[in-house]
Amino acid sequence: MNIALDVMGGDNAPREIVTGAILAARQYDVTVSLVGRPDVIDRELARHPTHRLNLPIVPAYEVIEMSDKPVKAVRTKKNSSMVVACQLVKEGKADAFVTAGNTGGALAAGILHFGRMQSILRPALIVPFPTLRGFCLILDVGANTDVKPEQLQQFGVMGSVYSRRIMGVRNPSVRILSNGEEEGKGNQLVLEATSLLEQTPGIRFMGNIEARDVTSGMADVVVTDGFTGNVFMKGAEGIVKLLQGVLLDEITAGPISSIGGLLVRSALRRMARRLDDSEFGGAVLLGLSNLMVVGHGRSNANAIRHTIRNAKQLIDSRLVEEIQSGVSEVIDSPDEVVALQR
Amino acid sequence: MNIALDVMGGDNAPREIVTGAILAARQYDVTVSLVGRPDVIDRELARHPTHRLNLPIVPAYEVIEMSDKPVKAVRTKKNSSMVVACQLVKEGKADAFVTAGNTGGALAAGILHFGRMQSILRPALIVPFPTLRGFCLILDVGANTDVKPEQLQQFGVMGSVYSRRIMGVRNPSVRILSNGEEEGKGNQLVLEATSLLEQTPGIRFMGNIEARDVTSGMADVVVTDGFTGNVFMKGAEGIVKLLQGVLLDEITAGPISSIGGLLVRSALRRMARRLDDSEFGGAVLLGLSNLMVVGHGRSNANAIRHTIRNAKQLIDSRLVEEIQSGVSEVIDSPDEVVALQR
Repeated sequence: MNIALDVMGGDNAPREIVTGAILAARQYDVTVSLVGRPDVIDRELARHPTHRLNLPIVPAYEVIEMSDKPVKAVRTKKNSSMVVACQLVKEGKADAFVTAGNTGGALAAGILHFGRMQSILRPALIVPFPTLRGFCLILDVGANTDVKPEQLQQFGVMGSVYSRRIMGVRNPSVRILSNGEEEGKGNQLVLEATSLLEQTPGIRFMGNIEARDVTSGMADVVVTDGFTGNVFMKGAEGIVKLLQGVLLDEITAGPISSIGGLLVRSALRRMARRLDDSEFGGAVLLGLSNLMVVGHGRSNANAIRHTIRNAKQLIDSRLVEEIQSGVSEVIDSPDEVVALQR
Repeated sequence: MNIALDVMGGDNAPREIVTGAILAARQYDVTVSLVGRPDVIDRELARHPTHRLNLPIVPAYEVIEMSDKPVKAVRTKKNSSMVVACQLVKEGKADAFVTAGNTGGALAAGILHFGRMQSILRPALIVPFPTLRGFCLILDVGANTDVKPEQLQQFGVMGSVYSRRIMGVRNPSVRILSNGEEEGKGNQLVLEATSLLEQTPGIRFMGNIEARDVTSGMADVVVTDGFTGNVFMKGAEGIVKLLQGVLLDEITAGPISSIGGLLVRSALRRMARRLDDSEFGGAVLLGLSNLMVVGHGRSNANAIRHTIRNAKQLIDSRLVEEIQSGVSEVIDSPDEVVALQR
C-alpha cells in the first residue's frame, strides 16, 4: 500500500508533515510517497532515523499556497505537490492522496485529476463528530460554500452509504441541519433539499435537526452545505477553547488546585482531542473517483500520522468502491438519476 | 415603567411565564402587564403571594402556536397575546414587549404592529456571546433565514451602534462570520456583504472571522444571517451539553470524585450559564420602532425574570432611540441611504 503525501501543504509544512510520514511509515507499515521539493524533503528526512522505512521521494517543485485561487492554481501549477500527488494516485502508483494544504486546491485537484464518481455532482468533506452516543457523520464541512438542493440530496445519499458500509450502522438516520427541528423550518436551500431528500429511495431521511441536537446523537448522518458545516465545526472548536480558558481561570484562581485541576485539565484535553481533527484523521473528500483525505491546515506530525492511518484503513475498507456501489444502488434507475441530477 | 409580557408563549407557558413575571415585579419594581387568557392567568397568580405587586391582566383569548405560519397567524389572530401585547406598546401603554413564544410570530408582529426603524430593511435578533475577553454581540441569531447582502450591511451598522451606545465600547470592531479568516473566503452572500460593509461609513469593519475565533474576542460585533447565527448559537449549546455528559462519565467512572467532581461540575455549570439565554435575558429584536425582547422558547421562570430585567435596563438605556439616532448618523446623507437600501 502506497499513500501519496503532499509534503508542502499545511501551516506546519514541511517539517511536521515529514515527521508525521515517518511516524506513520514506522507504526502502520505503509509506504508513504513524499511529494514535494526534494532538497526540502532530504533535509527533513536527515533529521530522523529512517532505516528500512518506505519513504520514496517524488519531486514536485511548485506549491499551491493558501492564498492561491484554487482552480487557477491547479491548472497552472502542473508541477505542484498537489497535482503531482494526484497524478500518482490516478496512474495507480499510489492508493490515496493525503494533504493538509489549501482545501479549495485539494477539491479542484480532485475534480480535475481524479474526476467525480459517476452521477455525483460535487464531492463533499465528511467527518465523524462526537456525540453522547458515539459519533455521527457530518457533510459537507467545507468543500462547497454555495450548493444546490440536489447536491445536498446527494450528500445525504453518500453519507448514508458511508455510515452503513464503512461505519457499520445498520439503518442510518439522515437529517438536515436547520434552524429548528420542526418541519418547515429552514432557509430556502434547506426547504428545497428537504423535499428532495424525502423522495430519495434507499435512505432513512428523518427531517430537520437543530445544531444543539447533533451532539445528542439524534442522527447518524447530518447533511449541510460547506459554509454552515464549517461554522458548526469551527464553532465547536471555539467553545472548547473558551471552556479551557474559563476553567483554567477557575483552577488558578481557586483554593482547590491539584486534584481538581488535574482532573479538569485531563478531561478537557480528552474532550478537545475528540473534537480535534488530528485524532479523527482528517476529512474524506467524498464523491471523487479516488481516495483523498484532507487534514486540518494546522496539522502537526501527530495529526498527519493519524490522517495517514485513516487513509490506510479507508483503502482497506475499499471506500471509493463501496460508496460508488452504494450510490449506484440508490440511483440505478433512469428516473432516479434524473431526480438526483435535475 | 410597564412591560407587556406574552403569558401564552413558550414551551413552559403559562406557569413559568407568570412565575417569572412575579419574580421580576417583586425584584425590579416594574409593572408587568400579563397578556393572555384571564382565567389561565388568574389561576396561576392564585398560586403565589402577589400583594402590592403591579401585575395587571390584559385579556387576549388567542395564542400564536409554535406550529403557526407567522405572518398569517399575526394577521388572523388579532386577539392573540402577541398582537394584543404589541398594540399595548404601540399605543404607549407599555414600554416594551417580552415573549418566549414563536420567534417568527414575534418578528411578524413586530414588523406589522411596531413597524421598522427608519431606513432599516429587516430587524435582527442580537445577543451578547461570551468570549475569553468578555462579550461580543452577534446578529442575526435567528430572525431572518434568508437575507440579502444589504441587510447584513445594516446588521453591521446596528450592531456597531448597539456596541458603542449600549455596551460602551469606544470604537467597536465589526466582522462577518465566514468559513475562513482570509479575504475572499465565504459564500456568495458573505462576499457581497463584505464589499458593502467595506464601504460603510461610521463602522470599523475588519473583514472575516472564523467561527473558532468568535470566542477569542477578535470582534466586538459579529454579523451573520439568521440561519447561520442560529446554527452557531445552538451548536455552542450542544457542545456544552456534550462536555457535561462526557465529564459526568469521567467523574462517575474515576476514583477521584468529590473535590474534582464538584469543581468540574460547578465550573461547567457556570459556563453553561454564561452560554444560557436565561442569564443574558433573551435577544433583542433590533431594528423595530419599539422595544421587543425575545426569550428562549424553553425559558423557565428564572429566564423570564432575567428577560424582563434586560428589557427594563434597555428601556432605561433608551435603546430604540439610541439605535435610531446612531443609524441615522451613519446613513444620513442621501447617497448613503441609497447605498444602504439599494
